[in-house]
Amino acid sequence: MIRPAYFDNGATTAVAKEVLDVMMPFFTGEYGNPSSIHTMGTAASKAVSEARKKIAAAVNCRPSEIIFTSGGTESDNTALIGAVADTGKKKIITSAVEHSAVLEACRSLSARGYEIVILPVDGEGKVSADELLKAIDNDTALVSVMTANNVIGTIQPIRELAEIAREHGALFHTDAVQAFTRTDIDAERDLIDLMSMSSHKIHGPKGVGALYVRNGVRISPLILGGGQESGLRSSTENVPGIAGMGKAAELAMSSMTDDVKRMTEMRDRIIDEVLSLKGSYLNGPREKRSCNNAHFGFEGVKGKDLVLALSRMNVMVSTASACSAGSTEPSHVLTAIGRSPSEAFSSLRITLSRYTTDDEVGILLDSLPKALKAVRE
Amino acid sequence: MIRPAYFDNGATTAVAKEVLDVMMPFFTGEYGNPSSIHTMGTAASKAVSEARKKIAAAVNCRPSEIIFTSGGTESDNTALIGAVADTGKKKIITSAVEHSAVLEACRSLSARGYEIVILPVDGEGKVSADELLKAIDNDTALVSVMTANNVIGTIQPIRELAEIAREHGALFHTDAVQAFTRTDIDAERDLIDLMSMSSHKIHGPKGVGALYVRNGVRISPLILGGGQESGLRSSTENVPGIAGMGKAAELAMSSMTDDVKRMTEMRDRIIDEVLSLKGSYLNGPREKRSCNNAHFGFEGVKGKDLVLALSRMNVMVSTASACSAGSTEPSHVLTAIGRSPSEAFSSLRITLSRYTTDDEVGILLDSLPKALKAVRE
Repeated sequence: MIRPAYFDNGATTAVAKEVLDVMMPFFTGEYGNPSSIHTMGTAASKAVSEARKKIAAAVNCRPSEIIFTSGGTESDNTALIGAVADTGKKKIITSAVEHSAVLEACRSLSARGYEIVILPVDGEGKVSADELLKAIDNDTALVSVMTANNVIGTIQPIRELAEIAREHGALFHTDAVQAFTRTDIDAERDLIDLMSMSSHKIHGPKGVGALYVRNGVRISPLILGGGQESGLRSSTENVPGIAGMGKAAELAMSSMTDDVKRMTEMRDRIIDEVLSLKGSYLNGPREKRSCNNAHFGFEGVKGKDLVLALSRMNVMVSTASACSAGSTEPSHVLTAIGRSPSEAFSSLRITLSRYTTDDEVGILLDSLPKALKAVRE
Repeated sequence: MIRPAYFDNGATTAVAKEVLDVMMPFFTGEYGNPSSIHTMGTAASKAVSEARKKIAAAVNCRPSEIIFTSGGTESDNTALIGAVADTGKKKIITSAVEHSAVLEACRSLSARGYEIVILPVDGEGKVSADELLKAIDNDTALVSVMTANNVIGTIQPIRELAEIAREHGALFHTDAVQAFTRTDIDAERDLIDLMSMSSHKIHGPKGVGALYVRNGVRISPLILGGGQESGLRSSTENVPGIAGMGKAAELAMSSMTDDVKRMTEMRDRIIDEVLSLKGSYLNGPREKRSCNNAHFGFEGVKGKDLVLALSRMNVMVSTASACSAGSTEPSHVLTAIGRSPSEAFSSLRITLSRYTTDDEVGILLDSLPKALKAVRE
């Protein structure tokens, strides 16, 4: 099979060769359980510690503030469900464009008696400080706003929102799954209390994620048992996965500036060329947008048909997010920015990675008009 | 480094070569997100379906009755915390020798108003039907008893206990993490409603497990978000891990009869020889014992010192379970069978795999007396 032109990096990414190389020894040779006290156990435990340092370095926190999880979803759930109990407060504020892992956790908390306030966003998907100020009060346990949107790429004013949360004695959580290693994140500077990260969005393996928990913030574990991860996430550690995530973060950070510049250029080329096509429009902002995200609507076209037409041309894209790909509901992100259901169904998400090539962009831009024509006919 | 003689397979196992081969393509080539509708997504989705069929075949259930999780601990938590809510009943019955993933889930449920009854075990770690009959009533939501004990290898009379549960309208859950592919398990025949399995105990990768949920049993998901796994376990599927677990189960089942016979012979050789050493005694039963488990006490010796002495000789064993290796408390399993704390601290667990060789057993049996001598001096 010819290698596809892959523009669904918002859904998942290829594992980098360097990452896989780091993982391999832990499958068959150094396969010890980190809880074992013999030399194979301590070797595994050391690998987990090393990875923890790498994740911490990527977001400027202490290694002890990082918990490894099974992925971004579990990190989001743990942050929200785990952190609010200890606050003794009853209000949670989030936004209308959050990932379903945050929104469903809120729904679960609502059923347990918490008041959930969902902030509206503007036409480009941005949460405003004014809206947060209107909603927040001293009974607010936690504010959760994602760093970069997974559907339309909007980058939120995290530092500004976090400052408001802190002033009101509320915890601030951000789902940084899409932003991690692609925007400048500093847990200390940005006043973040809890932050979710995922490995498979940054060329690490699937099935592993991390949660930053600021020193002093108490969380109740979601997964209970043997007391791994300082009692905050029981289960035998996924050593190859964790080592892979650590390497993936280190690798991404080592060339972030150049990668972001190149992805931004490719993104802007895609936006410019696609907007020159008849009946197309951009969803999300032009500036303050993820370097790897372009999201469009196409009048009179079903996004799903377009995805399938492009797939037949060996070009991989999506409509909104992968998680909602099978859904019959319009994307909640697109309706939140004011798109009608029919507009929401007419959409296409193009997401780049640092391995995306100009050749691939050429193939995409060559294929898209043909796919549009095929779908419209 | 010379390959260690590895006798800590109850803690974790090496990934089988055939398993790793199956996993590899999903890291770098076929790395799609199963929720994506393009060809790379459908290829990933197909891999997950294939693995689901293999797990189902191993325990005689339908593929739709298998949920993939991040491991045995999450499976146990989901089974207990997820299943009781819908029953409307308030009592949960478990045993004193369960894994901490079950016992901690019970503790969490206790804090939510559930009554937890912990059945005693006999001197060999066995739960009796009589004890269950005394405890069970029509307000019992769930009975959870493990198939094979992770510390002392006791095989429980699952079918008998499950029948009692069913007669009283209670769900029956079994943590089959240690037993899966090493004892004959049949969800249908054994009247099991919920069953936890893990990949890394059967030569699959760490970070993936499965939960069998009988058709008709309603569970609330522990991890909430994009609605993967029929809404019962959200998060992007760990495709390489899941494919690996499927292969690991298939591989283990294909030679189970022979493997069990060989492991049983090695186990019995170890038990016979170790019991001939002065001051040694067996924990757990002689018969009805996991084919891969031998567990001993040694008078006047700290198990931890023995583990470290053997580790220096490149022989890997453990004291009780890996999960409790760092704990300063005596193993709750050993105290449950009537061992004193000091006896519990004098213990050694030797766990085999189907890859354990007679040569390794020879090294172990040659090293153990030397290690005992060194520790006693």
